[in-house]
Amino acid sequence: MSEQHKRALLLVAHGSRRSASNDEIKRLAERLDSSERGDFEMVDAAFLELAEPSIADGIEDCIQRGATEVVVFPYFLSAGRHVSEDIPAQVKIKQQQYSSIKITIASYLGDADAMPGMIFEHLNTSR
Amino acid sequence: MSEQHKRALLLVAHGSRRSASNDEIKRLAERLDSSERGDFEMVDAAFLELAEPSIADGIEDCIQRGATEVVVFPYFLSAGRHVSEDIPAQVKIKQQQYSSIKITIASYLGDADAMPGMIFEHLNTSR
Repeated sequence: MSEQHKRALLLVAHGSRRSASNDEIKRLAERLDSSERGDFEMVDAAFLELAEPSIADGIEDCIQRGATEVVVFPYFLSAGRHVSEDIPAQVKIKQQQYSSIKITIASYLGDADAMPGMIFEHLNTSR
Repeated sequence: MSEQHKRALLLVAHGSRRSASNDEIKRLAERLDSSERGDFEMVDAAFLELAEPSIADGIEDCIQRGATEVVVFPYFLSAGRHVSEDIPAQVKIKQQQYSSIKITIASYLGDADAMPGMIFEHLNTSR
């Protein structure tokens, strides 16, 4: 049995009735997973509502794949109720279930300091 | 009368019933406007629905402030109907009204090639 620390990144999007939107999130998670990945051993996607897997199931999957730490990343642009209440409520259930696993919530995407720079870079390269 | 080319960036978000969310978008536009700004002379924010100014009013403001080109940037994470249909429909009205002004729509934020890199950078710096 490995004692190694394995950190998982769980990208959490809102979820949509349009499967194409959900597929876009899954593809992004795959891109993240196949990139350098920083200090994450694995990357997966989950959805707050309207799509599968749920946040709880996404966290569970990471743990079953050997994660000893799960960082839940709200892929949201603004800090609404979903970010401040709904995601933490779902994460809390798994935190209580797995007291030996570190499960944290990163700050949401829209809060990124790098956002202004990335917007201009995107606009420069996509026109 | 100046013949100078003046390019405006109009950040378009969905709009929310929560004024705090709309304020967050306006603050981001202000941050963009007060940063290096790339090759844009001005940056402003507008909303698809639920908040003011509308896209049409946002484009109009840019033109009244002297813009000779307006780049509409959908601040959206996935390519749903809002990005593919609703924003273009509103932009088209102003394109028809101002045939001498170049009004274009940039690709939406979630489509940015830099997104995976920015996500990891954000996670590294915000934890």
